[in-house]
Amino acid sequence: MLTRIDHVGIACHNLEAAIAFYESTFGLVVVSRERSEQQGVREAMLRVADAPAGTSYIQLLEPLGPDTPVGRFLARHGEGVHHVGYGVTDISAALASIGAAGVRLIDSRPRHGSMGASIAFLHPKDVGGVLTELVQAPGPG
Amino acid sequence: MLTRIDHVGIACHNLEAAIAFYESTFGLVVVSRERSEQQGVREAMLRVADAPAGTSYIQLLEPLGPDTPVGRFLARHGEGVHHVGYGVTDISAALASIGAAGVRLIDSRPRHGSMGASIAFLHPKDVGGVLTELVQAPGPG
Repeated sequence: MLTRIDHVGIACHNLEAAIAFYESTFGLVVVSRERSEQQGVREAMLRVADAPAGTSYIQLLEPLGPDTPVGRFLARHGEGVHHVGYGVTDISAALASIGAAGVRLIDSRPRHGSMGASIAFLHPKDVGGVLTELVQAPGPG
Repeated sequence: MLTRIDHVGIACHNLEAAIAFYESTFGLVVVSRERSEQQGVREAMLRVADAPAGTSYIQLLEPLGPDTPVGRFLARHGEGVHHVGYGVTDISAALASIGAAGVRLIDSRPRHGSMGASIAFLHPKDVGGVLTELVQAPGPG
């Protein structure tokens, strides 16, 4: 069902500083920047690797304010890994299967995510403490 | 420098229960189990995807006791993402470059990791709160 580790989402206080760090220290390159009022973040995707199953990224996330999911995460935990996103080929089928397995779905239906993908989050309490995202990359179909 | 997301390391209280969850919910398959007295863990690697740059895994980690790095992590944070491992082709060159950039190295020289890899950890305080591991897969050379 999972085709790749699509991305690791990392919460940071200062997006520009985090980008500069990952670029200069690890040689990564930003391939997308977005701002999402709905999710309350400014974000950047840095490409780690290309593969037949799709690209893997580091996603850097800066909250738009303290009263956002990532803002509350930073207040509680400080900077660090916020979530893990896995690639799937059919997100609706994956959600149906995972929901039937008893995992609570934060998003019962896919919604728009970064870079044109369809995404959905699973409840971390049902995934061993890991906020888990499913990502179906935009396809030709 | 980074060739792939090699693995996401996830701390859990009960390795067998975590394996059963990832297998049944996401259809993943265990490809390796190891016990490391040095690192104080029992672990399993579950393959997520194969790619030319190497395979990506979920690494499930159960501490051998409370007075181990993963045991202390669980006591402080509960279950969740413990670290992120990135593939590199030349771990010694990567450590030299990253150390020169000012990141403190937990392992100044590579040591033996899972599945025959050479690994080294970077200090999370210098990597935006993310315990970061470099992984050079065992090669033919």
